[in-house]
Amino acid sequence: MRIIADRMKNVPKSFIREILKVTESSHVISFAGGLPNPETFPIKELEKACVGVLENDGKKALQYAATEGYYKLREFISARYREKQGLEIPPESILITTGSQQALDLIGKVLINRGDRVLMEEPGYLGAIQAFSVFEPHFKSVRLNDDGVDIPALKKACAGGVKLFYCVPNFHNPSGITYSDNVRREASKILSQKNVITIEDNPYGELRFMGENIPPMRKYNDASILLGSFSKVAAPGLRLGWISAPPEIMDALNTAKQAADLHTNSFSQRVLYRYLTENSIDAHIESIKKIYKIQRDAMVGAMGRYFPAEVLFTKPEGGMFVWVTLPKKLDTMRLFNAVIKKDVAFVPGKPFYANGGGDNTLRLNYSACPPDVIEEGIKRIGETIKELLA
Amino acid sequence: MRIIADRMKNVPKSFIREILKVTESSHVISFAGGLPNPETFPIKELEKACVGVLENDGKKALQYAATEGYYKLREFISARYREKQGLEIPPESILITTGSQQALDLIGKVLINRGDRVLMEEPGYLGAIQAFSVFEPHFKSVRLNDDGVDIPALKKACAGGVKLFYCVPNFHNPSGITYSDNVRREASKILSQKNVITIEDNPYGELRFMGENIPPMRKYNDASILLGSFSKVAAPGLRLGWISAPPEIMDALNTAKQAADLHTNSFSQRVLYRYLTENSIDAHIESIKKIYKIQRDAMVGAMGRYFPAEVLFTKPEGGMFVWVTLPKKLDTMRLFNAVIKKDVAFVPGKPFYANGGGDNTLRLNYSACPPDVIEEGIKRIGETIKELLA
Repeated sequence: MRIIADRMKNVPKSFIREILKVTESSHVISFAGGLPNPETFPIKELEKACVGVLENDGKKALQYAATEGYYKLREFISARYREKQGLEIPPESILITTGSQQALDLIGKVLINRGDRVLMEEPGYLGAIQAFSVFEPHFKSVRLNDDGVDIPALKKACAGGVKLFYCVPNFHNPSGITYSDNVRREASKILSQKNVITIEDNPYGELRFMGENIPPMRKYNDASILLGSFSKVAAPGLRLGWISAPPEIMDALNTAKQAADLHTNSFSQRVLYRYLTENSIDAHIESIKKIYKIQRDAMVGAMGRYFPAEVLFTKPEGGMFVWVTLPKKLDTMRLFNAVIKKDVAFVPGKPFYANGGGDNTLRLNYSACPPDVIEEGIKRIGETIKELLA
Repeated sequence: MRIIADRMKNVPKSFIREILKVTESSHVISFAGGLPNPETFPIKELEKACVGVLENDGKKALQYAATEGYYKLREFISARYREKQGLEIPPESILITTGSQQALDLIGKVLINRGDRVLMEEPGYLGAIQAFSVFEPHFKSVRLNDDGVDIPALKKACAGGVKLFYCVPNFHNPSGITYSDNVRREASKILSQKNVITIEDNPYGELRFMGENIPPMRKYNDASILLGSFSKVAAPGLRLGWISAPPEIMDALNTAKQAADLHTNSFSQRVLYRYLTENSIDAHIESIKKIYKIQRDAMVGAMGRYFPAEVLFTKPEGGMFVWVTLPKKLDTMRLFNAVIKKDVAFVPGKPFYANGGGDNTLRLNYSACPPDVIEEGIKRIGETIKELLA
C-alpha cells in the first residue's frame, strides 16, 4: 500500500518559502518574500489590547468558541464592507478563518471534486494553486493584461464549462496589476452567465496609495465568494482572515471549518477586535500606505534607471509587488542563480503558472526593504540582466 | 453541476456543538461540552507573557513565520516527551498545528485515499470521525473494553487490511477509559505486524489524578503518529497542538500544512512558550488535576447514589469524561429529550459510533461544572432514568 494519499502528488511546495530559508541571512537583499513591513505592526496598541482582553474577558477569550468566529469581529467586517465598498454582507454570512489561506483550503474541500475545472489567472496566486491542488482539480489558466483578466480569453475558457474562477482584482499577487472597472463588469457578466463561482480575494485592497478606488466585482455578481485578511493591515502572525459565500456554500464551509480546526484562535480574534475599536484602523492604514508608496517609488524608479529598455515591468498603484517580464531568451532561473551570488533574491515567475510557462518572468516585493536597499538590490539585478543579455 | 463537492456528503456535523448552542443559557446544567474548567486558565501569567513577547520580539511574533512552527516551542515539546514519557522525539519531527483537530485534518489529507480502511474505536472521538470523513474512508470499528481496545476484535479487523488505526489510550474521549499496559503492548504488536499506521492521540494524558502512569503505545511501536495539545493543560482558545510522524509522512504533512493555513498563529506560539518558561507547567497541571479530581468524584459519587444499578458507567482515573451505558431498552435520545426539559444536557452516544449503534449510551463531562451543580444535575438525570424505566 502506498503511504501518502494520491491527492498530495501534485501539490507544489512553496518555492517562495524554500527561498526564504536561503535568504534568512541578513546580508542578502531579499525581494523574494511577501512580508509586510514589520515597522508598520501596531505593537504597542496590540499589547494594550491583549491586556484589556485578558483582564476583562480572559476566561471567554481562552475557552473553546464558536466555529463561525467572534461575532463582534464579524460585525466589524460587515460594517466595513458597507462603509468602504458599499456591500451588504451580514455578519452571519462571514466565517473567520485561520488567515485567508485557510479560506482557500475550505473552498477546495467544499467545492472541488477531482477533475472539476478551476480557472486561474496567469500568473496566479501560488497559495491558491497549492490549496486547490490538494483536491485534484483540472486547472485552466487565463492570461492577465495590464487592466485585468483578458476578456476574450475568459469567454473562451468559460465556454468549455468551468466550476470556479479565482482572482485577485486589486494589486494582484504576483503581478501587481489592478482590474479596471470595465474589466470587472465584463468579466462578472461572463462568469454569471456561465454559472462560474467567482472567488474574489482581496488581501491588498485597502493598500491603494495612488489612483482611484474601483468597486469590487461583487457589485456586479451577487453570487461570488469574498475573501479578506487582516494580515496586510494589522499583522499576519495573528492568522486572521475571513470568507463570505452564498448560504448553501456557507453551511458546508462551516462544517468543513469545524472538521479542520474547530474554530480560529479566539484570543487573537478578541485582541484584534479590541485593537480595531480602541484605535483608528484608517489612520493606521494611511501610515502603511505612506511607507509602501515610498518603497514602491524607490523600486519602480530604480528599475527605470537600471533595467534595459527591453525588460517590462508593472507599476502598481497599491499592494506589495512588481512583476517583471524579461526578453524571451532570458530564463529567470538563470538570472536567479546569477543574482543570488550577488546576495540578491527574488521569486522566479514559473511557480505562479498553474499550467506551466512564465520562464522569463519574476516577482519582486518592495514592502520588506528600505528604499536605499531597494536601490542597491535593483541595481545589482539590472547589471546582471545586462551581463546575461550581452 | 452540483455545487457542493461529494466528499462533504458524509461529514457529520458536531451534535455537540449544536447542543452547545441550546445550552448556552446559564440556567441549564450542561454535561454536554468538552470544555476545560475556565477557572484553571492562567490568565495573569498569559498576560505577562503577552507583554513580554510584544516588548521583546513584537516584530517577529506578528510576522509570517515558518510552516513547521516556533522552534523553541517544538524543543519544549521534545524535551517534555523525553522527561515525562521517555520518548526521543526530535523537535525537527514536530509540526505545530492549529489545535490537534488540525492534525486530524492533515492526517486525513495526507494519508486517506477514498475507500481506505480506517479503524476507529467504538465509541470513538467525534472530531476524528468528522475530520477523516471529509476524505471518504471506509470506517471500521473495534470495540473498547474497560482496559482498552478489544484485542481479538482488533486482530480480526486488521486481518482484512487496514491503513490507519486512531486511538486515545489515556482517559479516552468519549468513554473515559484508559488502555492497560498489556493492551497497549498487545495492540501495538498486532498493528505493527499488519503495517497499520497507528495514530496515538493524547490530549488528556497529563491529567491523571488517580492511579499510575502507563507508558505510551509509541514505546512498543516506533512507526506510530503522535498527537498532542495544549488545550487541556493551558487554554484551548490559543488553538495550539502538534503532530509527530515518521519522516516521509512528516514531509507531506508540512506541505499540506502550508497549503492549509501557511503556519499556526505565531504570536500565540511565542506567548505560550514564554508562559511555559516563566512558570511551572507541572505545578499548573497539579492544580488542574486537584480540581478535576473533586469534580470527577462528585459525578461518580452522585451516579452511585442516584442511578439505578442496571445503569453502567466508567470510573475515569483522569481526563474529563464519564461514559454511561443504559439498559438496552432505553434510548438515550429519549432520555436527552426528557432531561433537557429539566434543564440538564449531555451528549447522546450515537455520534461517537462511526459505524452506527450506541443508542443506549451517553457521555457526561464533569470539568465544566462545580461539584454542587454536578450533584444536582446527576440527581435529575437519575430520577428521569428511573421514570423512563418504570
